[in-house]
Amino acid sequence: MIRRVGHLFSDRSGISITRALLILGLLFGGASFAYAAVDEETLFVFNTFSFLVWGALVMWMAAGFTMLEAGSVRTKNASVICLKNLGLYSIAGLAYYLIGYNLMYVDVGGFIGSFKLLYGPSADELALIGGDAAATAAVVESGYAVMSDWFFQMVFVATAASIVSGALAERVKMWSFFVFTAILTAIIYPVVGAWTWGGGWLAGMGFQDFAGSTIVHGTGGWAALAGVLVVGPRLGKFRKDGSVHATPPSNVVLVTLGVFILWLGWFGFNGGSQLVLGSALDAVAMSNVMVNTNLAAAAGVITALACSRWILGRTDMFAALNGAIAGLVSITAGPDITQHLWSVIIGAVGGLLCTLSIKALEKMKIDDVVGAVPAHLICGIWGTLAVCIAAGGNFGVQLIGILAVGAFVFVLSFLAWKLIDVLLTVRVTKNVERMGQDTAELKIDAYPEFVLMPEEDIEE
Amino acid sequence: MIRRVGHLFSDRSGISITRALLILGLLFGGASFAYAAVDEETLFVFNTFSFLVWGALVMWMAAGFTMLEAGSVRTKNASVICLKNLGLYSIAGLAYYLIGYNLMYVDVGGFIGSFKLLYGPSADELALIGGDAAATAAVVESGYAVMSDWFFQMVFVATAASIVSGALAERVKMWSFFVFTAILTAIIYPVVGAWTWGGGWLAGMGFQDFAGSTIVHGTGGWAALAGVLVVGPRLGKFRKDGSVHATPPSNVVLVTLGVFILWLGWFGFNGGSQLVLGSALDAVAMSNVMVNTNLAAAAGVITALACSRWILGRTDMFAALNGAIAGLVSITAGPDITQHLWSVIIGAVGGLLCTLSIKALEKMKIDDVVGAVPAHLICGIWGTLAVCIAAGGNFGVQLIGILAVGAFVFVLSFLAWKLIDVLLTVRVTKNVERMGQDTAELKIDAYPEFVLMPEEDIEE
Amino acid sequence: MIRRVGHLFSDRSGISITRALLILGLLFGGASFAYAAVDEETLFVFNTFSFLVWGALVMWMAAGFTMLEAGSVRTKNASVICLKNLGLYSIAGLAYYLIGYNLMYVDVGGFIGSFKLLYGPSADELALIGGDAAATAAVVESGYAVMSDWFFQMVFVATAASIVSGALAERVKMWSFFVFTAILTAIIYPVVGAWTWGGGWLAGMGFQDFAGSTIVHGTGGWAALAGVLVVGPRLGKFRKDGSVHATPPSNVVLVTLGVFILWLGWFGFNGGSQLVLGSALDAVAMSNVMVNTNLAAAAGVITALACSRWILGRTDMFAALNGAIAGLVSITAGPDITQHLWSVIIGAVGGLLCTLSIKALEKMKIDDVVGAVPAHLICGIWGTLAVCIAAGGNFGVQLIGILAVGAFVFVLSFLAWKLIDVLLTVRVTKNVERMGQDTAELKIDAYPEFVLMPEEDIEE
Repeated sequence: MIRRVGHLFSDRSGISITRALLILGLLFGGASFAYAAVDEETLFVFNTFSFLVWGALVMWMAAGFTMLEAGSVRTKNASVICLKNLGLYSIAGLAYYLIGYNLMYVDVGGFIGSFKLLYGPSADELALIGGDAAATAAVVESGYAVMSDWFFQMVFVATAASIVSGALAERVKMWSFFVFTAILTAIIYPVVGAWTWGGGWLAGMGFQDFAGSTIVHGTGGWAALAGVLVVGPRLGKFRKDGSVHATPPSNVVLVTLGVFILWLGWFGFNGGSQLVLGSALDAVAMSNVMVNTNLAAAAGVITALACSRWILGRTDMFAALNGAIAGLVSITAGPDITQHLWSVIIGAVGGLLCTLSIKALEKMKIDDVVGAVPAHLICGIWGTLAVCIAAGGNFGVQLIGILAVGAFVFVLSFLAWKLIDVLLTVRVTKNVERMGQDTAELKIDAYPEFVLMPEEDIEE
Repeated sequence: MIRRVGHLFSDRSGISITRALLILGLLFGGASFAYAAVDEETLFVFNTFSFLVWGALVMWMAAGFTMLEAGSVRTKNASVICLKNLGLYSIAGLAYYLIGYNLMYVDVGGFIGSFKLLYGPSADELALIGGDAAATAAVVESGYAVMSDWFFQMVFVATAASIVSGALAERVKMWSFFVFTAILTAIIYPVVGAWTWGGGWLAGMGFQDFAGSTIVHGTGGWAALAGVLVVGPRLGKFRKDGSVHATPPSNVVLVTLGVFILWLGWFGFNGGSQLVLGSALDAVAMSNVMVNTNLAAAAGVITALACSRWILGRTDMFAALNGAIAGLVSITAGPDITQHLWSVIIGAVGGLLCTLSIKALEKMKIDDVVGAVPAHLICGIWGTLAVCIAAGGNFGVQLIGILAVGAFVFVLSFLAWKLIDVLLTVRVTKNVERMGQDTAELKIDAYPEFVLMPEEDIEE
Repeated sequence: MIRRVGHLFSDRSGISITRALLILGLLFGGASFAYAAVDEETLFVFNTFSFLVWGALVMWMAAGFTMLEAGSVRTKNASVICLKNLGLYSIAGLAYYLIGYNLMYVDVGGFIGSFKLLYGPSADELALIGGDAAATAAVVESGYAVMSDWFFQMVFVATAASIVSGALAERVKMWSFFVFTAILTAIIYPVVGAWTWGGGWLAGMGFQDFAGSTIVHGTGGWAALAGVLVVGPRLGKFRKDGSVHATPPSNVVLVTLGVFILWLGWFGFNGGSQLVLGSALDAVAMSNVMVNTNLAAAAGVITALACSRWILGRTDMFAALNGAIAGLVSITAGPDITQHLWSVIIGAVGGLLCTLSIKALEKMKIDDVVGAVPAHLICGIWGTLAVCIAAGGNFGVQLIGILAVGAFVFVLSFLAWKLIDVLLTVRVTKNVERMGQDTAELKIDAYPEFVLMPEEDIEE
């Protein structure tokens, strides 16, 4: 199978030559080697361990999205948000195991991989586990444990699904959302992945997207936008006189916790996307990735906070919180740049764009509860283009990638949402929306002992 | 000392042979080796680093149990829950240092290890730290840093203690609980550990429990069950007419956060239980473990959610949350299976069993606040038996292990709880229980600025 | 550049000799070597990965401080607390990139490093990334990726800034605090760092501070104390009759979550401060560090809890929570001791000192909202002196270090706070303080749907 083709192979081949020379040197007594390179099996362990450790951190982002979303909505919907996020992470993992990974990475032609069901260790790995030590060489040759890669890729597809959840909060039916999640994670995301990281036509053109500004965040953002258009805004969000009903988060601390979790998880998201850790080159590159990731997020926060006074008329806390996400998404397509100052600039522009987009979306009467479209889609586009500035991307190719992924994901998602609407309806009834999904759908209040404010008036 | 004997040694010896061949090859110019194996000292670093990284994640589970429990109880008891969990983690670490580890792993005969107090680095390690570079060879020979193993084992004993805490919430006296924690972590758990991972009689029979479905979760579950029986149900939980008083969680988001933390920590719990990371074989096995862990949890969530409509009469959020734990516990005895589909099935059955058990316990008028017995004990038993399906366990031996551990832990725990009851009383007074432990025992409300609902009526 | 000079070089040189011998042995057929040492490039990867993984955990401490602080204050200020912490972490990262790291580690004379702006990969690293494989040897020679070290050091400076935040909560102006944060992280902390870890005059005298009891926690604590004195106590905290107005935390569970996050992060803080992971010696030392860190924290909790009955007149939850931090800070200067019992004792004394200091500060009418001075400054001093007991520190040198850092940080911080007060004022108006900073400064309530208690009476 082929995965995230570009940098994996270029990195790997460099190592192999170095090692070959080294071994020759040791055998024939050459003393001219200043250092000893990483052994092949050691490299295998490094690569695998890197996938597992960073993958675990990316899984943690699922909790970050949950906290961010549960804190953003009104308390009467917080339980459903929690269950929706727990469910989507579970569904994403199962769907990606059932078919998604094969579609994305196995026998990819230009557009799509294999329709074979399930996935598992390689035959060599099974032989090795079965006790055949002679299989070690063949296993080591593959560079990393097959399922460590699966694990790392799986947490990425879950991230894409998490993005959709937040935008549609407070009015989408839980089971309808789950059906869409299955479609997104079994089919839509894997096909986009096949075109790119799987080695398909976009990869062939030289499209660059290190950790997924477009592939993950763009896909999630387009799917969210399609969903928002089909599902429609929350009751009373946009008044007849054109004004916007403010819907402040019910729990600011939870939102903040969510942002910190996402920031932490992003070190795994971007750092682990170096994919290999078997040479000094890899280690240097991964370090640069971590630093750029942090700088872009920090710049996003400060820029959004400073700009918010000008754009939104006040020091806006949520601009700052979204600014962190915006900076992170913006740097995700090219976090391996070596001029760190560029990552500050890229993150800062992301923070600015996100703050502007929040305002623009409201003007367009698009109700995106957590700002998923501004933070993930708009900044995903910006980040994918920014690769041309500091990381050598080709503008035309990057644009083609953005448009192709956008068209594919948006159209398919829109159709999927429409289909689900016909079959199951995507939106809860007005009564349920007024009462809150927690009581109506789950018969569970999120905070039953705390007295809530009287229901806000809702315009219909 | 001997630890988790079975797989450690089988893995290790495989490596040694490979390496010996390799070194010979290098020395005598043999060019037939397709790859270079992991060096001994590199292997030592890998094994140690793996223990430390995954051990840190397991420590994080203590926070997960705390959030889950603090969110599950009524707000009037949330502070005590927090303090109880902080205290139990501290006590477990100190007790395991004082005596527990020695009892479990040092000079284990069939039934018990050493009664020597305290634990520390090996003599070779002390020499090496003291500057004697010649000690390196002997240190490296042991395979991992002595205290990295201690660290990893310590966070496991804390997990067992955490399980007990949740079941007894809202009526157990804090100091009495601390005394029981000390007994559990200094003696009961270490003895069970000596029989199994320490190389005692159950290990000798071939009992398999990779990361502790029985050893950790079963032990915690049995101790919890004994405690629940001695302490009794919360006032008013079971009404005279036979109906059950619903006690919804006070904070659903906290419970969800707790589940996500536990899920993340479980990657360390199961992944780190591979114990070694010094070869491609180990790396492959650890990767499979991570994947199975995630699949089982996901299957547990979805199954419990789907079944809850049928078993509990509604889409039940807490069935889903407990389903994650159930799936995780179920796969813990054999997460190294290579047919990942089995882990989906094992997790799904776990989710079903847990949901059924929640209902069964209520019928038996056993008041287990967080569902510790269903999730940890019932699924621990199921997981230990499931090893026979896909991971080569012997049914008879697994059953003997389950019964022996169950009998030992339950009886000793029951006696310990009874003894503590005589000496200190285990239960708070009715007045304290009505008022809440926070105000009565700590003079601290968990959420003093939030207005609470009027006290629910309590039947006496 | 030079960094944390002492132990890095002593460790590294030991490795080099071992490896040189080994390579000679392999080349000339010596069969007397019992093991194969870590290769140079493998060592490079280990060191770098260790920095990145543990650094990510230390970043997580920023979330811990946020939760601890947001839970400690009254709800009317919780949003500002969240924003302040998100902002300080961002500013610290940018300031340390702009100038801080250079000032601390580049071309350090006795007192200060370079005033060059920005920081980035080495020329060799840039060559290697640019495709020049011949640069590998030079890169490997440096021992770790340059930016992995920057990443690890950056999260430390953020920790120092976080400490200041908590002490000043509920009355400091957000933007004034941000200005101080920039000064602290760009200049004050880096100069202290240059004296010590940067190889300056204190390092030359043999001052020992493994992970920063004085350098990080002392610096943060002194800066906090200066701020508290300039900003003054909260309105009504100290009544005219000399009594103290109790200000219980608004959310005990959040405080507890914060403590667990800090405890977890501290494994990165102390463990990663071993700085290298390229030999069995390093791995053994890092393991001991982790164990001591955990034991000291546990002892701090239990001691503080037990002592609180005697010192504060009740089983005090916050004494216990602060006891964990106290134990952690106390062991931070010397967590590499090999007699683990000492770490229990050092942590226990820390827990006691912290509890006593909380009471003493109140008597001195110093209003430190989260107990930053007791936990970080007092225990930082104790920990720095405790190095003389079990880790070979020289008492005179340690004392000089404590006093020099204290005088420098306190005086500069005091001047900085005074200057900011003149230019921007440091304190919100009485009206804002009464109303709460959330509504007044941000127009955002932290928990808008929850009904709050009527405003407490405030004495003026």
